[in-house]
Amino acid sequence: MTVQKSIAAETSGHGDMQDITGQIAELVSASGIRTGIANVFVVGSTAAVGAIELEPGLAHDLPALFDRLVPPSRSYGHEQAWHDGNGHSHLQATWLGPSLSVPVHNGAPVLGTWQQIFLLECDVRPRRRNLIVTVVGE
Amino acid sequence: MTVQKSIAAETSGHGDMQDITGQIAELVSASGIRTGIANVFVVGSTAAVGAIELEPGLAHDLPALFDRLVPPSRSYGHEQAWHDGNGHSHLQATWLGPSLSVPVHNGAPVLGTWQQIFLLECDVRPRRRNLIVTVVGE
Amino acid sequence: MTVQKSIAAETSGHGDMQDITGQIAELVSASGIRTGIANVFVVGSTAAVGAIELEPGLAHDLPALFDRLVPPSRSYGHEQAWHDGNGHSHLQATWLGPSLSVPVHNGAPVLGTWQQIFLLECDVRPRRRNLIVTVVGE
Repeated sequence: MTVQKSIAAETSGHGDMQDITGQIAELVSASGIRTGIANVFVVGSTAAVGAIELEPGLAHDLPALFDRLVPPSRSYGHEQAWHDGNGHSHLQATWLGPSLSVPVHNGAPVLGTWQQIFLLECDVRPRRRNLIVTVVGE
Repeated sequence: MTVQKSIAAETSGHGDMQDITGQIAELVSASGIRTGIANVFVVGSTAAVGAIELEPGLAHDLPALFDRLVPPSRSYGHEQAWHDGNGHSHLQATWLGPSLSVPVHNGAPVLGTWQQIFLLECDVRPRRRNLIVTVVGE
Repeated sequence: MTVQKSIAAETSGHGDMQDITGQIAELVSASGIRTGIANVFVVGSTAAVGAIELEPGLAHDLPALFDRLVPPSRSYGHEQAWHDGNGHSHLQATWLGPSLSVPVHNGAPVLGTWQQIFLLECDVRPRRRNLIVTVVGE
């Protein structure tokens, strides 16, 4: 069985982390699939998804870490193509990745007690994001 | 067809890398699924899974690399929430990720000759870990 | 339904990024699967796959970023095992990862307008690569 739905999100700009666990759990529950895999994918090259304990400290730390190691700069080659100052956004998003797959058990995503699925905006301005959730199983 | 099983692992603490390839291959073989995808997911926010040539040199190099770029520190925002000195554990685990999907072919995971699936403990103390292996296919 | 095919690629050496989106889209289309997940996996420990806007600037920036943060060096522990100067290749490939899962919708992989699936060669010499594309769905 395969069920696919999309989630829309409005981000506030660079470093915005949003908890999308509840929306994914609802989609999984409504899918009728009890056992399987849920894949979460954000469309576009300057956002990423992942799993974290999404408390305010780490919601600060993760984007700060990316900006320290993959800093904003006008010297990226990407700047030659677009001149929009978001070379670091692309690199951060690619490195973390646009896709996360989590197991589905008893009709719910399996996560730790302090583990959430997040959307990270890496672009330098607010964006409207489209996420695709695909659940396969039985 | 969908088959899901869990694997328990006892880790020795920060930087412990364990080869879980054999256990995953056994589960895949026992599943009866010949062609498909096997997803491996570690529950919890301070451990990660991935693929590597798991020889002693790289088992040292990968945790050392993470500790160089994402170092232990009491200055992470996460420290304000828990005061348990594992902010870097969360950041390292999130960046590498809790999930790996590998193809299943002829009833076995497809891997290179020198390629293993590993569990990496990022937390600062020994932990009992629960991994979920989900195989979908036919 | 499950369909699995392989893609062969010849890389030119360290930092070579290749756009494999077209080949994956063809396989997905030919699979007859309209809705599901496509998993792309590169066999071997010194190459990675991911998603990026694959224009010449970023095709330079991403390997350059990896070489800055995870530099070539003879001081990796891995050098003790093989003496072949590719410790950084293993670490870069593991960190980015060998696997990407993207949704399939209307018989095609879902990607942004400026978003491509790439193979990144991390090894220090040209390699013949084998990628496995597995599509599950209906």
